[in-house]
Amino acid sequence: MNMHISLPDGKTLELPQNSTALDVAASIGERLKNDALAARENGQLIDLLTPLHDGATIELLTKKQLEETAPLFRHTLAHVLSQAVGEFFKAKGFDAHAVKRGVGPAIENGFYQDFVFPEPLSADDLPELEKRMLDIINRNLPLERRDVGKAAALEQFSYDPFKVELISEFPDDEPVTFYQQGDYVDLCRGPHFPRTGALPRHFKLMSTSGAYWRGSEKNPQMQRIYGVAFAIKAELDEYLRLLEEAKKRDHRKIGKDLELFFTSEAIGPGLPLWLPNGATIRRELERFIVDLELRQGYQHVVTPQLAKVDLYKTSGHWEHYQGDMFPVMKIDAEELVLRPMNCPHHIQIYKHSQRSYRDLPLKIAELGTMYRFEQSGELSGLSRVRAMTLNDAHIFVRPDQIQGEFKKVIRMVQEVYGILGFAEYKWRLSLRDPQDTEKYVQDDELWTHAENLLREVLNDLELDYFESVGDAGFYGPKVDVQVKSALGKDETISTIQLDFLLPRRFELEYVNEESGRSRPIMIHRGIISTMERMTAFLIENTAGDFPFWLAPEQIVVIPIADRHLEYARDVAQTLTDRGLRARADDGGERMQAKIRVAELHKIPVILVVGDQEQEARTLSVRERGASGSERTERKGVPLEALGQELETRYRARS
Amino acid sequence: MNMHISLPDGKTLELPQNSTALDVAASIGERLKNDALAARENGQLIDLLTPLHDGATIELLTKKQLEETAPLFRHTLAHVLSQAVGEFFKAKGFDAHAVKRGVGPAIENGFYQDFVFPEPLSADDLPELEKRMLDIINRNLPLERRDVGKAAALEQFSYDPFKVELISEFPDDEPVTFYQQGDYVDLCRGPHFPRTGALPRHFKLMSTSGAYWRGSEKNPQMQRIYGVAFAIKAELDEYLRLLEEAKKRDHRKIGKDLELFFTSEAIGPGLPLWLPNGATIRRELERFIVDLELRQGYQHVVTPQLAKVDLYKTSGHWEHYQGDMFPVMKIDAEELVLRPMNCPHHIQIYKHSQRSYRDLPLKIAELGTMYRFEQSGELSGLSRVRAMTLNDAHIFVRPDQIQGEFKKVIRMVQEVYGILGFAEYKWRLSLRDPQDTEKYVQDDELWTHAENLLREVLNDLELDYFESVGDAGFYGPKVDVQVKSALGKDETISTIQLDFLLPRRFELEYVNEESGRSRPIMIHRGIISTMERMTAFLIENTAGDFPFWLAPEQIVVIPIADRHLEYARDVAQTLTDRGLRARADDGGERMQAKIRVAELHKIPVILVVGDQEQEARTLSVRERGASGSERTERKGVPLEALGQELETRYRARS
Repeated sequence: MNMHISLPDGKTLELPQNSTALDVAASIGERLKNDALAARENGQLIDLLTPLHDGATIELLTKKQLEETAPLFRHTLAHVLSQAVGEFFKAKGFDAHAVKRGVGPAIENGFYQDFVFPEPLSADDLPELEKRMLDIINRNLPLERRDVGKAAALEQFSYDPFKVELISEFPDDEPVTFYQQGDYVDLCRGPHFPRTGALPRHFKLMSTSGAYWRGSEKNPQMQRIYGVAFAIKAELDEYLRLLEEAKKRDHRKIGKDLELFFTSEAIGPGLPLWLPNGATIRRELERFIVDLELRQGYQHVVTPQLAKVDLYKTSGHWEHYQGDMFPVMKIDAEELVLRPMNCPHHIQIYKHSQRSYRDLPLKIAELGTMYRFEQSGELSGLSRVRAMTLNDAHIFVRPDQIQGEFKKVIRMVQEVYGILGFAEYKWRLSLRDPQDTEKYVQDDELWTHAENLLREVLNDLELDYFESVGDAGFYGPKVDVQVKSALGKDETISTIQLDFLLPRRFELEYVNEESGRSRPIMIHRGIISTMERMTAFLIENTAGDFPFWLAPEQIVVIPIADRHLEYARDVAQTLTDRGLRARADDGGERMQAKIRVAELHKIPVILVVGDQEQEARTLSVRERGASGSERTERKGVPLEALGQELETRYRARS
Repeated sequence: MNMHISLPDGKTLELPQNSTALDVAASIGERLKNDALAARENGQLIDLLTPLHDGATIELLTKKQLEETAPLFRHTLAHVLSQAVGEFFKAKGFDAHAVKRGVGPAIENGFYQDFVFPEPLSADDLPELEKRMLDIINRNLPLERRDVGKAAALEQFSYDPFKVELISEFPDDEPVTFYQQGDYVDLCRGPHFPRTGALPRHFKLMSTSGAYWRGSEKNPQMQRIYGVAFAIKAELDEYLRLLEEAKKRDHRKIGKDLELFFTSEAIGPGLPLWLPNGATIRRELERFIVDLELRQGYQHVVTPQLAKVDLYKTSGHWEHYQGDMFPVMKIDAEELVLRPMNCPHHIQIYKHSQRSYRDLPLKIAELGTMYRFEQSGELSGLSRVRAMTLNDAHIFVRPDQIQGEFKKVIRMVQEVYGILGFAEYKWRLSLRDPQDTEKYVQDDELWTHAENLLREVLNDLELDYFESVGDAGFYGPKVDVQVKSALGKDETISTIQLDFLLPRRFELEYVNEESGRSRPIMIHRGIISTMERMTAFLIENTAGDFPFWLAPEQIVVIPIADRHLEYARDVAQTLTDRGLRARADDGGERMQAKIRVAELHKIPVILVVGDQEQEARTLSVRERGASGSERTERKGVPLEALGQELETRYRARS
């Protein structure tokens, strides 16, 4: 019996059973048979060599759609790498079966392959492997796919214990699939390119590292070779450039260079200590957001960082977040635990007084420190930590106030981003996945209502937003704000979440206009995220060239000669009296060396003073332009005028 | 054989064995025998009825030294109370043995006596007991002391299980001492007044409360009656006035009235939540001290509030403070604990870089939150808590810098107290008790050296200080600053401690001028104590009438009629724009009611606006004088001028 295949233009083909996409291409024409590289079967990416399903719609992809075929060519490049490694060791006189192989999948931006080598292989060997890979590509070997009986498969790979383990797990009556190019054959489900000559040459082997067979420490260790691969050269170049840039901007590196923070073996992992420079940035951020919130009618509180376990049983955190919480501290009859979130504490503030409809909206804010127990392997600098301080607030509203307050928070986000210099950001309306009954509170009507409310707000404000199903919080839908970093990545910085659930769990009430009882709704919101996360983001975004108001050291005064030191100190004191962070460099180095050090420390304003300046009480000003551009120089600026100018700049947070 | 007794004037007397101070008085003269009330035997207070030791020096006390005899007359008043209670129940028809008695000692300011009553006794009965006590005093009953054999004693008190228990614990061959007045007799070691008529009448029974026999919850419950008693009426009156005042000033009461803080059953005891008003005071205090420290060269850091247990094993806290620490949190191989002190964290900051002699003094400061596990029964408001944030700093110095830095800290204390308005305070040089080998690090030479250094500093600054043996810290001697509160009590607010020990335990070093290694010394110092303690102290000291800069609500604008509301809002906004905390009272109450509420909330500045003010853009200003004195009123103050004036006052923290 034949099978029927539809084409995107609506035509249908009749082909023999078990035909492949290559057969489809051939039946259309010889040219397409040669050009085709991959296909989509009912929208899903497949290779040309795999039998099709009867009734499927098949779209053929050629090199015009090369980017779309990335998962295939990356996977095939892993096989090419694998073959190259075999030839590499053969050239060294090893037997063809000397190399054992683990998995080798395509991943984001590239591929990897796990091996056990007959002798160690180092990063220095990677260029030769790349050369051998190019050679295999140039040989334009066709890839073949074939099914083999389990017994025959075991026979063929008897020399490789990893393959034997994998093949043994197949049901006895099911065939095992192999892919082969040239004399290299591997157990593989595909999909792959039809021939090595069609593979893009824009790849690079990045590193070798250790990896356990099947990811478990209990299994033998293997060596993993990582590669990146792209359809076009420009993409590869850009990727490598961003990688270089990311290394330079790595907040852990800059944090060390500029003495911002460190973690200590004696204190414990994930618990960074903020050095004076880092603490200055943090203090500026904290005062900035607190002052802004106070002006906008938020009421700041300070609540303890731990509570009875029962509080989290009521809130539901115990049930849903227990795995992320620190261990319970038991003393006598008491069970206390470090808080994983601040909401239950703010709810206690709400419940402390009887609230009336006239008291709402009630906006409770805090720089709330909270604790998450992350595995030590997942911790990183300031961005993944175990203790963090969130710019947190909870707004308790009447139903008729939800949208108005949501809009106010959105405008606050815009105002804050303006000051922080975040120009590119996206609004995401995060909705629940109605299929996921585990992750979300079940109440269809409430969810629909809440999601519509938020959609209206975003529409009213004419914001350019997108919707994302499955990203809602447990309690309700939210609006997330994703800021594009200097490295082009989107990071969620702000979150505004609607919550009908906690008010119910904690039985919150207010006295309504009819003197009856109504239930408030909560808006959870964070504008500048945690101090840890925001600082990490700012470091990477500015590469350490902080805006003037955030710079730990704002001004350094450098005397040309020793006789100018007194004036330099005088200038520094005058500026310090204005509340600025200024100091005179009274070290023993020469002026040029001092300037270089100041530039390395990324101090925004460098003042140089010599005879002329001293006499006229002026300054020679070298300052960094916006976002770390080249320094400009002004001469003969009067001290008083400069002080005024810098103070204004500081107070305006620019 | 006779015994010999010396008198204060050097004379000696020869008296029969077992003579008493009363015999001494009699041998001097009949008049003194009648006037004597108590005595000192080798400086120790005794009564007139107890046999003296051969060779002792005896000083007799009469009513001229009544105040010095307080422990005796308070103790005797407990017996008089006990007798009065017996007569009280006898008058109700109860048997003489119906009342059982626990202990009845003299305490500070008074006495108490524990009972088991045949029927409940309430606070309403206290005046009648006082009357009966006065009656017993008026009867001028002589007190007799006598020794009884154990068997006879058990016989006599067989009706009272508590007495039986106590007597049974006497060695069989030792006599048991009784005191008796009139028909009331009690097991007692004394000392007592010779007769009830000599007792001062300035006493008051304060309360009844439950108490366990011998202080253990496992024992039967008794009822305790508390009394206060003084030598002169003025003292009693002053005591009662201060008690009244203390109740009014109780920071827990004011904290509730002014909505400053609360504790929540849901969060846990000893973990106060700071409401917006309290958090405002705290924020002002924090910014005040941080800004001052930054100006004075301190470097502020932020460090985590927990650490590995091992850190505290190194520091010695684990050994010495473990009982006060929270339980360890164990996860996998990690053991973490909430920190009981901040020093080890600051030491990690010091150790983070190599330090040179030029880097010292290094002043590391933090608003450091720390945790002490106090028993829930000991917790109280903000003054005894389990989590507290200390205005902490550690100064790492070279030996030649100790005194200079100590002086700077002392001057900082003086500056801060000036701003906080603390006029009366005492400097205490707290030294070790050389006998107490448990409490103090053993190193005689070091202690002597360190104590002398501090003594010199205090002498150099010509401070009026006193020395207190046994009040030093574990690590070294310290200077404590005790501030006299509005209730006349001394509270230790600031502490400056010298520490040679922790630098040794953590092996701290710096590169000295000869490029060798030297060990720094640490100065631990807290200027404004913990935010919790300082706030509690300020509340009690100001009775809630906070100085302008600290007041949670600084200004309220009250419109005379509805037509003035717009102008009132305008005024509030103008002042808010200056960074002041101002609001217009737009509630529905009448003007006079609004003024009364503002006064109850202790708002320092009340602005009233009517037609005249609105037209001329002026204000009618009612403000509280210094330390909560009567409000003064000024009329026709221009808005602009008032804004300027109040802003200046706020920035000057007055």
